[in-house]
Amino acid sequence: MPTTLDCFIMRDVFGSARMREIFDSRRLLQGWLDVWAALAEAEADVGMIPADAARAIRAAAKAENFDLEKIGDGIEHGRHILMPAIRGLTEASGEGGKYVHWGTTTQDVIDTGMVLQLRDGLGVIIDDVRDLIGLCAPIAREYRTLAMAGRTHWQHAVPITFGMKIALWVDELTRDLARLERCREEVLVAQLWGAGGTMAALGEHGAAVQRAFAEHVGLPLASAPWFNQRDRFAELVSDIGILAATVERINTEIARLSLTEISEVAEPRTNVQVGSSTMPQKHNPINSERAAATCKMIRGLVPVMQGLMVNAHERDMTNTTAEWLLLPQCMIMTGGALELTRRIVGGLVVKPERMARNLAITGGGIVAEAVMFGLAEVMGRGEAHEIMLRLARDASDREVSLSEVLLADPRVREVLSEERIRSLVDPNNFLGLAGEVVDRVIDSAPVGLA
Amino acid sequence: MPTTLDCFIMRDVFGSARMREIFDSRRLLQGWLDVWAALAEAEADVGMIPADAARAIRAAAKAENFDLEKIGDGIEHGRHILMPAIRGLTEASGEGGKYVHWGTTTQDVIDTGMVLQLRDGLGVIIDDVRDLIGLCAPIAREYRTLAMAGRTHWQHAVPITFGMKIALWVDELTRDLARLERCREEVLVAQLWGAGGTMAALGEHGAAVQRAFAEHVGLPLASAPWFNQRDRFAELVSDIGILAATVERINTEIARLSLTEISEVAEPRTNVQVGSSTMPQKHNPINSERAAATCKMIRGLVPVMQGLMVNAHERDMTNTTAEWLLLPQCMIMTGGALELTRRIVGGLVVKPERMARNLAITGGGIVAEAVMFGLAEVMGRGEAHEIMLRLARDASDREVSLSEVLLADPRVREVLSEERIRSLVDPNNFLGLAGEVVDRVIDSAPVGLA
Amino acid sequence: MPTTLDCFIMRDVFGSARMREIFDSRRLLQGWLDVWAALAEAEADVGMIPADAARAIRAAAKAENFDLEKIGDGIEHGRHILMPAIRGLTEASGEGGKYVHWGTTTQDVIDTGMVLQLRDGLGVIIDDVRDLIGLCAPIAREYRTLAMAGRTHWQHAVPITFGMKIALWVDELTRDLARLERCREEVLVAQLWGAGGTMAALGEHGAAVQRAFAEHVGLPLASAPWFNQRDRFAELVSDIGILAATVERINTEIARLSLTEISEVAEPRTNVQVGSSTMPQKHNPINSERAAATCKMIRGLVPVMQGLMVNAHERDMTNTTAEWLLLPQCMIMTGGALELTRRIVGGLVVKPERMARNLAITGGGIVAEAVMFGLAEVMGRGEAHEIMLRLARDASDREVSLSEVLLADPRVREVLSEERIRSLVDPNNFLGLAGEVVDRVIDSAPVGLA
Amino acid sequence: MPTTLDCFIMRDVFGSARMREIFDSRRLLQGWLDVWAALAEAEADVGMIPADAARAIRAAAKAENFDLEKIGDGIEHGRHILMPAIRGLTEASGEGGKYVHWGTTTQDVIDTGMVLQLRDGLGVIIDDVRDLIGLCAPIAREYRTLAMAGRTHWQHAVPITFGMKIALWVDELTRDLARLERCREEVLVAQLWGAGGTMAALGEHGAAVQRAFAEHVGLPLASAPWFNQRDRFAELVSDIGILAATVERINTEIARLSLTEISEVAEPRTNVQVGSSTMPQKHNPINSERAAATCKMIRGLVPVMQGLMVNAHERDMTNTTAEWLLLPQCMIMTGGALELTRRIVGGLVVKPERMARNLAITGGGIVAEAVMFGLAEVMGRGEAHEIMLRLARDASDREVSLSEVLLADPRVREVLSEERIRSLVDPNNFLGLAGEVVDRVIDSAPVGLA
Repeated sequence: MPTTLDCFIMRDVFGSARMREIFDSRRLLQGWLDVWAALAEAEADVGMIPADAARAIRAAAKAENFDLEKIGDGIEHGRHILMPAIRGLTEASGEGGKYVHWGTTTQDVIDTGMVLQLRDGLGVIIDDVRDLIGLCAPIAREYRTLAMAGRTHWQHAVPITFGMKIALWVDELTRDLARLERCREEVLVAQLWGAGGTMAALGEHGAAVQRAFAEHVGLPLASAPWFNQRDRFAELVSDIGILAATVERINTEIARLSLTEISEVAEPRTNVQVGSSTMPQKHNPINSERAAATCKMIRGLVPVMQGLMVNAHERDMTNTTAEWLLLPQCMIMTGGALELTRRIVGGLVVKPERMARNLAITGGGIVAEAVMFGLAEVMGRGEAHEIMLRLARDASDREVSLSEVLLADPRVREVLSEERIRSLVDPNNFLGLAGEVVDRVIDSAPVGLA
Repeated sequence: MPTTLDCFIMRDVFGSARMREIFDSRRLLQGWLDVWAALAEAEADVGMIPADAARAIRAAAKAENFDLEKIGDGIEHGRHILMPAIRGLTEASGEGGKYVHWGTTTQDVIDTGMVLQLRDGLGVIIDDVRDLIGLCAPIAREYRTLAMAGRTHWQHAVPITFGMKIALWVDELTRDLARLERCREEVLVAQLWGAGGTMAALGEHGAAVQRAFAEHVGLPLASAPWFNQRDRFAELVSDIGILAATVERINTEIARLSLTEISEVAEPRTNVQVGSSTMPQKHNPINSERAAATCKMIRGLVPVMQGLMVNAHERDMTNTTAEWLLLPQCMIMTGGALELTRRIVGGLVVKPERMARNLAITGGGIVAEAVMFGLAEVMGRGEAHEIMLRLARDASDREVSLSEVLLADPRVREVLSEERIRSLVDPNNFLGLAGEVVDRVIDSAPVGLA
Repeated sequence: MPTTLDCFIMRDVFGSARMREIFDSRRLLQGWLDVWAALAEAEADVGMIPADAARAIRAAAKAENFDLEKIGDGIEHGRHILMPAIRGLTEASGEGGKYVHWGTTTQDVIDTGMVLQLRDGLGVIIDDVRDLIGLCAPIAREYRTLAMAGRTHWQHAVPITFGMKIALWVDELTRDLARLERCREEVLVAQLWGAGGTMAALGEHGAAVQRAFAEHVGLPLASAPWFNQRDRFAELVSDIGILAATVERINTEIARLSLTEISEVAEPRTNVQVGSSTMPQKHNPINSERAAATCKMIRGLVPVMQGLMVNAHERDMTNTTAEWLLLPQCMIMTGGALELTRRIVGGLVVKPERMARNLAITGGGIVAEAVMFGLAEVMGRGEAHEIMLRLARDASDREVSLSEVLLADPRVREVLSEERIRSLVDPNNFLGLAGEVVDRVIDSAPVGLA
Repeated sequence: MPTTLDCFIMRDVFGSARMREIFDSRRLLQGWLDVWAALAEAEADVGMIPADAARAIRAAAKAENFDLEKIGDGIEHGRHILMPAIRGLTEASGEGGKYVHWGTTTQDVIDTGMVLQLRDGLGVIIDDVRDLIGLCAPIAREYRTLAMAGRTHWQHAVPITFGMKIALWVDELTRDLARLERCREEVLVAQLWGAGGTMAALGEHGAAVQRAFAEHVGLPLASAPWFNQRDRFAELVSDIGILAATVERINTEIARLSLTEISEVAEPRTNVQVGSSTMPQKHNPINSERAAATCKMIRGLVPVMQGLMVNAHERDMTNTTAEWLLLPQCMIMTGGALELTRRIVGGLVVKPERMARNLAITGGGIVAEAVMFGLAEVMGRGEAHEIMLRLARDASDREVSLSEVLLADPRVREVLSEERIRSLVDPNNFLGLAGEVVDRVIDSAPVGLA
């Protein structure tokens, strides 16, 4: 019976099937097998081992032919993480078997295998972020000038547009994506340096085997061993942590804007979905909540991974062991959070009429700044601020509209006409650069051609 | 194909089979079924539902009769975490089915079910810590007076005893255990408060049903709803984090003392175990490393869980959802780390001859404090300190023994006889309260009767 | 010019003057001086040093007579954290000076000095938490039955009372307080064990000096050295982290309920306070925001402190050094967050009329559960749930009141009278145990006699 | 009396004077003043305010003319963080005063001011990292071929060179530096977007004022408001966290290699430095320990800063407030850790004779891999591994040299001559690519021309 990320009940709350597949037991083993096959081929290239042996090893290096439970049991008993697989591959490779794992060290195999899995996983994440941007962009365009309340300090501040809000998601996601793409260049490197990072076991063939190996395994080789230089993995997880914070912000904002009192957006609702087991009226933003919760779990891995950089001596398994769990968890949960978020944003319900209604609830208070600047043009900022502070509180305390208070105030009327006042309190006249922000962000966003 | 904590290859690196079983899909479902059965019985007790219905529900509430994959698929489609199981139980309960989940809310069921799992999991952890103390205690006793180098600032400082080192593990583990036992009292409480924490759905029966439910489910009821009061779970995870830090310290110390240059202890070695795939001379402290790495992962959950306390409004799934993954991960990894540690400590190889040899390598420098205090008795601390600073550095720079330097120094010889010098430089004469610390700690440690 | 926590501009945003005073340079030095004086007295008690020397040291041990900048410069140059202060005290103690720091080690002095500061700091925190509970309790009582919307999943769920919401703060704070009081017992212990934890430097006097020292310094001695057993400090910081999460939850809830659309509570507002520099209408919950932000900083220290437990060998300054910064920061920020929170809660503005208005905005939807249970009594839960799901969505989609929809539905009318329907949709009839929760929690809360 | 980071006693343990100066109260205020002056100039440029006013504001914008304690008190009373400074500048600007802070919002000023401080602080950090690389590079070159024990799993594995160990520090620091330089480009952007991010208060002048402001303040303007898009700060702190992990690794490795049993390196020792207050023989790596401890504190800020990205609505002071403390702390501590590390590495004591001696302690075991590969060439990897496993353990158990055991073993002698055996066990013949790694890394390191 599976647990946690594989638990039948929980697995799709926190993960995605696509990403779980990339990091399952078979793919883990396949990564190692690919490394061993590439190594044998490289060693055959330079003449260290017979070409037949390399061919035999490559042919045998198919995870589907291995009994994974048996390998797991072998690890549990013998404690060495690779030995059961080495034995399995050795047996399956016949005569060539004795050249399996030749001249390499455990961490070479595990690290390069992990990078192969990360390559696939990162591909999915990068595609998903790009998709998510692609889903946001048309929403930002569509609602480019749709005024809504901008809220700062949990208070209506000034009007913004819904398109701008979405554009700012895109703005942040675009940087997140750039970070990941940059990091992908760094993190996708092979490891082949032997027991102490010197490749000494291969004698004079070391450098040549490294080059050939990089070719066969399909990854560039780092210019130096990185057994204890784990800053690349730390950068990866940190960048994913930043992405997770963005995704959490988006989802929590959706949940917050779904608040009964606000109700400006809603998650897409399917017919089969059940809102609440006891409160039938509710439209719970359940997927936003799940995605946000998953992002908190992802972010929790960042300090752990950065801590795993602080290694002892030349290799330090009190740290690197933890990566075997941390990195797959990180990828699976990120896959899960992104899948949910794409589903939510892709069907996001937007409610312009509620935005308009909410915009009106301060009775014009939300454009107090506009009025203050109108006043300040004639009486200076200090005095304008004081007058508005008083009038706005008065309107708020008495729950009357700001325009009413303004129209009744002699000092205001002295300097502003009724028409000017009515124009100043119209939110649509106080949107500033909102539309331009949308254009600027979306025009340069990495949205696909279609 | 399983991943992460269930991965065939990794599962016993980070977890234990016993703990995985407690937190697997079936036990998760069984927890919910137990809650529904207890609730039905409670409602039957107060006459809200027919006794037959309660009996039917109890009879049907057996996880082994449910198709877990189907339930998982139902969740994936309908998004509500409980509805597929509610439907399953409803069908299986025949006529009584309509009373399933009556008057309760999702979080009542999930929280109480989680607590039932935690009860079992905490039982295992507490037993394991107690066992670990029981394994350490006789080692502390046996080596009560075995002198070894005490190291501070990575330098030989003064002699301690190996028994004292182990006793200080026991000292810390004993407090860790007390914390967990105290916390267990707090965390093992049922949740049954209905949609908003008022039990309003049950009308005047609310309090009576709560009492009967607590009885049937076998957990005391908290005096108030705790939907968003998650300090109990935070305390649990924080206390486990502290335990993990202790366990990590023990394992890392074992690894450190296994250092080729120190070699004072070693992990037990089995015949089947393979040391290194390429370096046959090594006796790697592989299990200590794994346990230490697992502890880092556990500790990473602490700030996440504390953050999950910061909930919005009356219930907040952007936080509580994460507990469904975090708590099982925490328990499974703690089970794993403790199982490895018990195995290591239970067979710990202690090397008194290496301790003696290491103790000698500073040529008496390690007892410089003893000599300084001998000198200080006659010449005052300031002067004694200055003389010893000079002589100790001289001995260290020339790599001769401190006693040689002392015997050759006229100012020292003026006040100390050769016999006194030789006595002062014998580490066995400078063990102070080490033995008493062992007695004090072990006498009051929670070691079993045997 | 001071920085960060002392910055003239920021210091009262994040800290409190009272707590800064306890952890300032002079108090830090005074802690050490108190330890040296107590040690000398203890050594005089057992006859190791002259009673005159102890008296001279005690008389000289007054921080106000030391030049702190000079001591700081001495540390910067000589690197040893205590030596400049030892030299200062030695000089100031005349003849007795040579017995200063006799037989002890740096960490004895620093740890015990820190515990003396923590004792004072914890006193303040515990008083503040108690005060905060005392401020909440009458609010809970006053609004025991004041109905307001209970919100789950960011949706109106069922009615609760405002008193119950506050009572649940008290419930959590009461456990937080109990944790701190329990922890205080553990953490307030002296350290006096000498270089390696064996007290060997004091020869046969070790245990007697320890006992006398504990007496003179006013702290019990731990039963074993705790140079590298830092679980007590970890527990302290973890418990404070849990408290900070509670305080953050309270403050963020206040901010959230201040949201323009909700407006059910507000921070107290002073006349001198300026809301916003440009938006005069705003009543920003600025202190709640500051307190919440400070709590996030506090919580960030928890994993660091737990990590500092993982020490090497007998003493490990790569960890313990960090405590010198971490613990004062933790205390100062906790003092700051609590001071702000007491100020906020002590003057909290509660708006019953807004609660009533908000309660009505779902047109009765918030009592859909009540209606469902009313229906379920006659037609079973399944059918009732389905009907209500349909009707509630219908009411919500058409924005009409639920009672209207109910009264118009033939299947509902078949089983419920108009009077029954009107009674079911009155929130005040659906408060369940809310009032009892208030009574239960407040009756057992640690509120003062007055 | 200052506390924590300003504490006379602790300030140079955790920080550097240079960095404290950049983040002190006066510089904080100066940042704001620079923003206000630049804003006024920009507004004058576009004709919104009189050029005289801008000149007056610029002239008055000198922090040294302000009473910082008074400003601090004003904040404490009125709660608004900027208002006392605005008032001060308004008064000091005479007639022009009424245009101070015109059309901007608090967060514009604070964010841009913070970025100005970060610019200076980042300059220092980047210089320091470059310096540190410059200090490491010649050490790597000098010891390019100096053989020492490579240690994996706390066991001697195979020989490496000391130069390679240092080169791997450079390798990691070089990537850390590149990350910071890349991040500097992103993070050094001005903020000027007004209350809601729309610049609406400036009417049609918005975009023009932004452009002129960027010019005057000397920072490019971000293409969109970033009030709640804090990924740039999160990237900065995450990248610094990664740097801190590298620096912690370096310092902890120095401490570890200073271990009495290893003694291969030592911190530089000054004459004034006091080793231990009671153990004169010790050469404590005190600065390495302090730097490592500081790095742990720095790393603790990373998850907090990433969490501060998860903002509500358009601006969220429950998060951004915390940056005011977090960012200065982060910079000051990073300045401190780098200053200590440069001092340590700049005078690092390297002990080739101890490296040679340690290399010999396994009696050749450290080159067991070399021998195994020698054997494997003739008998295949499997058999060679088995033989070596047996012989290496035999040598280790009997504490005789591996060459002795090899020379005595008939199966080995059958295939290897004595000369070949003696050559295989010479560590200098088994250094592989160590020297090439040094060349490759140092040749491409960002070391200055000199």
